[in-house]
Amino acid sequence: MSEGKLYAIGTGPGASDLITVRAARLLEKLDVLYAPAGRKGGDSLALSIVREYLGEQVEIQERHFPMTANADEKQGVWDEVALDIENDVRAGKQVGFITLGDSMLFATWVFLLERLHNKGLALEVIPGISSYSCIASAAQFPLAMEQQSMAVMSCTAEPEVLTAALQNHECVVLMKVYGRFQQIRELLRELDLVEHAVMMANASMETEVTYRDLMAVPDDEKLPYFSTIVVNRAWSAKISG
Amino acid sequence: MSEGKLYAIGTGPGASDLITVRAARLLEKLDVLYAPAGRKGGDSLALSIVREYLGEQVEIQERHFPMTANADEKQGVWDEVALDIENDVRAGKQVGFITLGDSMLFATWVFLLERLHNKGLALEVIPGISSYSCIASAAQFPLAMEQQSMAVMSCTAEPEVLTAALQNHECVVLMKVYGRFQQIRELLRELDLVEHAVMMANASMETEVTYRDLMAVPDDEKLPYFSTIVVNRAWSAKISG
Repeated sequence: MSEGKLYAIGTGPGASDLITVRAARLLEKLDVLYAPAGRKGGDSLALSIVREYLGEQVEIQERHFPMTANADEKQGVWDEVALDIENDVRAGKQVGFITLGDSMLFATWVFLLERLHNKGLALEVIPGISSYSCIASAAQFPLAMEQQSMAVMSCTAEPEVLTAALQNHECVVLMKVYGRFQQIRELLRELDLVEHAVMMANASMETEVTYRDLMAVPDDEKLPYFSTIVVNRAWSAKISG
Repeated sequence: MSEGKLYAIGTGPGASDLITVRAARLLEKLDVLYAPAGRKGGDSLALSIVREYLGEQVEIQERHFPMTANADEKQGVWDEVALDIENDVRAGKQVGFITLGDSMLFATWVFLLERLHNKGLALEVIPGISSYSCIASAAQFPLAMEQQSMAVMSCTAEPEVLTAALQNHECVVLMKVYGRFQQIRELLRELDLVEHAVMMANASMETEVTYRDLMAVPDDEKLPYFSTIVVNRAWSAKISG
């Protein structure tokens, strides 16, 4: 029996051709692929990204990871999936687990890594393009240069924390804007950074939207879930695009 | 005549199969590829990464970008390359420019973007895997999770700036360690972060080296030029690997 192995694969932000060549080649030869599904029975975005690369033999295991605040429920689901994956690897299978964006940044995959790193399993992690890299490229809006620095923040952080980041770093990526856009825009306005900010939703997908003038976004705009703001004090949003 | 277009292509950190599928497909059909060369006449690492994907028709234009402190000399070289690229695009060619890592983060490509963004040329930027994403994956050492944040810093920054970043963010990526390793290690030791740091040189290349115990690195260790430290306060370097 061949040795089983687990591959954690970053799918990148959304477009199928933004996965790495390494990931594409691997997806062709896997035995099993675990894919996170956003809602029970719902489509997996990560799965839709990689589907064209999957070999015919690949068995797909969609798993639902609840977005609940109930820690016990989450832990239970992670424990269960980790055990299933471990069993597949021990049975000699080539097992994939796909995760949106990069595999090691804000990736649920790391909860599995915590459970599997000390099991003695063969394990390889394949990085993916982060949403903000894709946004910077698509909007032609640079991140950091030379002596500058970049902070990647979640908009769920306290306003003081976001303010400090916006003051200390030339480039700040604001993830998880969803549901917090008006407060974030107000903060950027106070710090005189609105003209140095670009927002993009669903980067690299067919539904991609770019907002180069945040002040022009209506208060009641229905922002897509995957909306991210990139701020660069050293670059004007009006230069790009 | 077909419309010319410029493609800025991130090559990722070093392994040929860590470029995106989009980049690989593009490289096959280009007319001209501009590649930065580190030294006059020296090999271009970026070029070696993409060589296997290049169609036979691709004309290679290696250009030397001096690592000089002389701003005028640098500006002159950038102006010249920008003009050559502009002329090729106006002549109807499909023109590529490759840049190590991601195209919009610490990438010399942005100096060309500054010169070309307002010329009315068709232009597309293709993101690449950043070295630190690759390091996190290869070392199985996570970057930020959930409410955490990440700062990407250059070790050329002042010690107070680095200290603040290390205090304010769970994850800090320290780029450009080369020539500054001992001071950086001392700083990490003072902040009690040595056990939460992993250093990797030449990530994804044949010459890749991982240092999981920074205290064990000899003072006179000859670190490769591409050495990066990833710090994660919430993760122990001893857990991974």
